[in-house]
Amino acid sequence: MKVAFIIYEGMTALDFIGVYDPIARLKTMQFLPELEWEICSLTPHVSDDRGLGFIPTKVSECLSGYDLIIVPGGVVANVYNLIETTDFIQWLKTSESSKLKVSVCTGSLLLGEAGFLKGKKATTHPNHFQELEKYCDAVVNQRVVDEKDVITARGVTSSIDLGLYLCEKFAGNEVKEKIRQRMDYQSII
Amino acid sequence: MKVAFIIYEGMTALDFIGVYDPIARLKTMQFLPELEWEICSLTPHVSDDRGLGFIPTKVSECLSGYDLIIVPGGVVANVYNLIETTDFIQWLKTSESSKLKVSVCTGSLLLGEAGFLKGKKATTHPNHFQELEKYCDAVVNQRVVDEKDVITARGVTSSIDLGLYLCEKFAGNEVKEKIRQRMDYQSII
Repeated sequence: MKVAFIIYEGMTALDFIGVYDPIARLKTMQFLPELEWEICSLTPHVSDDRGLGFIPTKVSECLSGYDLIIVPGGVVANVYNLIETTDFIQWLKTSESSKLKVSVCTGSLLLGEAGFLKGKKATTHPNHFQELEKYCDAVVNQRVVDEKDVITARGVTSSIDLGLYLCEKFAGNEVKEKIRQRMDYQSII
Repeated sequence: MKVAFIIYEGMTALDFIGVYDPIARLKTMQFLPELEWEICSLTPHVSDDRGLGFIPTKVSECLSGYDLIIVPGGVVANVYNLIETTDFIQWLKTSESSKLKVSVCTGSLLLGEAGFLKGKKATTHPNHFQELEKYCDAVVNQRVVDEKDVITARGVTSSIDLGLYLCEKFAGNEVKEKIRQRMDYQSII
């Protein structure tokens, strides 16, 4: 399985790292040794919404070769800025053939703008349910909403719940529990 | 208040980002506009324990000017490697005069090696309670252990609880609750 962690200027770091931690443990704890991932960005330099710099491993490359695309959210003004002023959505659309696309927080607005939420249920940060409505069939107030090929998670820290949910989906409950314990996390879904 | 987020080769990203998110919100949500922070490293390049690159804002600078020092953990082999093969502990000791030093997960072994846990109670990841014993007065199985000038948090995701605990300490319960809600987090301490 090939995973693309999408990062972009103005994202919220915890949206990204919360799901990155459990997913990467599928490989580092040797449950899915064949798992591979890249940190994918449209730009060579990425800072989060508070100025923290991250280094991508792939810049401006087509996303069609990945099985799983993971899109974090950000302060909503940054997300709209991304939609309005860059080629980000065109780039995100190159992942159309990917089997599974997931988002955290306002990342679902980006999936929506790319057209990936049409006819689906989805969620986002509770402060932004209204903005999500136009992109999807119904906005759902749940921590994780699974629509098979698209899974969305609610606010910032739901990223961790999404990650553990995906661990269970890919490797079963026992593996998910081992990862959860290693993360010293108490599941709330 | 000046905060130093310490980062180092082989750290666990979520240990750092879990506490960084709520602490930085004290400023971005304008509760403590005078708060400042730096991302401090001994080396110009830092990758986490899975290869993710971070960009520090201060490299190899004395830590004595900070009020709060925050030390993440990492896979324990990486932490011992840091202790045995680099000047990291000497560098960390330059924070001796800082009013408050906190750690997440195996970061407490680094605080311990620097001598900051002498006569204190402390915690770390449950898998490493034994390694912590020699550095402190007593190892405590709690998510956050507050010894006034030193606060330690347990495993990886306890970083978030530590961050919210510090928000309450610095700005009160009402502010902490607003940050917790914005993070869409259900407190477990």
